[in-house]
Amino acid sequence: MMDLLPRCRIVLVRPHYAGNLGATARVMRNFGLSDLVLVAPYASVNDLDARRMATHGLGVLDAARVVPDIGAALADCVFSLATSSMTAGVFRSGTIGTAAEKMPELLASAEMGPVAIVFGPEPHGLSNEEIGLCHGMVTIPSDSTFGSLNLAQAVAICCYELRKAWSKSVNDTRGKPEVPERAVAPFVDQNRMFEHLREALTEVGYLFGEKGDSLMHALRQLIGRSLPTPQEVKILHGLARQLLWTANQIKKNEPDDKPPVDRLDKSDH
Amino acid sequence: MMDLLPRCRIVLVRPHYAGNLGATARVMRNFGLSDLVLVAPYASVNDLDARRMATHGLGVLDAARVVPDIGAALADCVFSLATSSMTAGVFRSGTIGTAAEKMPELLASAEMGPVAIVFGPEPHGLSNEEIGLCHGMVTIPSDSTFGSLNLAQAVAICCYELRKAWSKSVNDTRGKPEVPERAVAPFVDQNRMFEHLREALTEVGYLFGEKGDSLMHALRQLIGRSLPTPQEVKILHGLARQLLWTANQIKKNEPDDKPPVDRLDKSDH
Repeated sequence: MMDLLPRCRIVLVRPHYAGNLGATARVMRNFGLSDLVLVAPYASVNDLDARRMATHGLGVLDAARVVPDIGAALADCVFSLATSSMTAGVFRSGTIGTAAEKMPELLASAEMGPVAIVFGPEPHGLSNEEIGLCHGMVTIPSDSTFGSLNLAQAVAICCYELRKAWSKSVNDTRGKPEVPERAVAPFVDQNRMFEHLREALTEVGYLFGEKGDSLMHALRQLIGRSLPTPQEVKILHGLARQLLWTANQIKKNEPDDKPPVDRLDKSDH
Repeated sequence: MMDLLPRCRIVLVRPHYAGNLGATARVMRNFGLSDLVLVAPYASVNDLDARRMATHGLGVLDAARVVPDIGAALADCVFSLATSSMTAGVFRSGTIGTAAEKMPELLASAEMGPVAIVFGPEPHGLSNEEIGLCHGMVTIPSDSTFGSLNLAQAVAICCYELRKAWSKSVNDTRGKPEVPERAVAPFVDQNRMFEHLREALTEVGYLFGEKGDSLMHALRQLIGRSLPTPQEVKILHGLARQLLWTANQIKKNEPDDKPPVDRLDKSDH
């Protein structure tokens, strides 16, 4: 069986403290992970605190990639989870879970390509917009009066649960025949498709204002959760194109007051 | 139901780095623990690194007690677990377990009095002798090529599993009637009894040399696991006294060549 832990990426978004970079690298090494990506970091991997905290994880730290935004960090990923101590907001209940619940799901997705856990900056965590770019959300149950974990501690607990899931899957599948990998569209392709879809859904008046954002989030979760294939992403692009054409026709025909549903029905058949 | 998490003590033995004290206090606060004991610490809770890392856990840090040895840290405890990345050595398989396996056991014991998880110093962990003072051993499954976790990360994962066990027990027992606490002899009494027993077993020639240590460890685990009552501890003291008396009789009678088994049998009835 393929070793899936190296396919599980840790993404730190705008980390502030070098010590957290080092501690993250070390604990990744402890649990068998190696793929670290830093999004627009304030702290440097060359800082003495980072190197001191990394100990045997120096190799992970030195191999860390720095990218400008979350999109670049997740570009080739088939599945991603955002971490947050807040559970209110943009997410539907089906896509939120505890670390113990979500790590087996993340690991299963790694069969199909790289996956990622995304951690926000130390002071305030990820924005709703950033959370919305991921397929789901993971929380670590903690005290309600002070639930905010240190960044590297949160990484440690996710890596720990991931390794538990991995150990279990290794024991469960030992001796089972390997299954062929299913193709899943990478994040960058899915994301382009979602943007296309958002544009189209806005143009046709489905998405608007604040409610539009949460509707689009819900759609992203719904589609993302199914791990769409490249072919399915193409199909959704086709849908978006069609909606945009329709919206354009409506605009053109508005003076004529033609019913837009007519145009939509024709193009579907 | 009584809240058991405040009865779960974190014991750090000779911690070297102040940052680890702070990070430990914070993560204890995150998961609802509050009882921190430092055994002969090299690092100070007043160090700037400790206070900076503690954030909202400053209250836990400031309430930490400093004691000279593990015995003092565990004096009132009814159950304790030593942490180690090594699983070879003095312990029998029944008393070793992963954090996920052992934390429910620790929490259940907290019904009867204070319990503790004991963490060794950063460079090398607990000595075999120190591990032997505890009732069992807990490990965190990790990479075989670099399994040694940062001290505060190990604390985080144990506290996390402890809170999981606590959440589960709160959900399981909600609505159930409270059960009266069973009396368990505190560590200091158990330990005195074990020392008495060791002396007696050595005197009667049962324990000797290297093998004697591991035999005594096995006995400690066996008896300790049953959470002996004060009455049972008295009974074991009685046994030790009797064995010593017997050994003494043997020594006295050696010139006469009396069979020692005779004396032992009589005193038992």
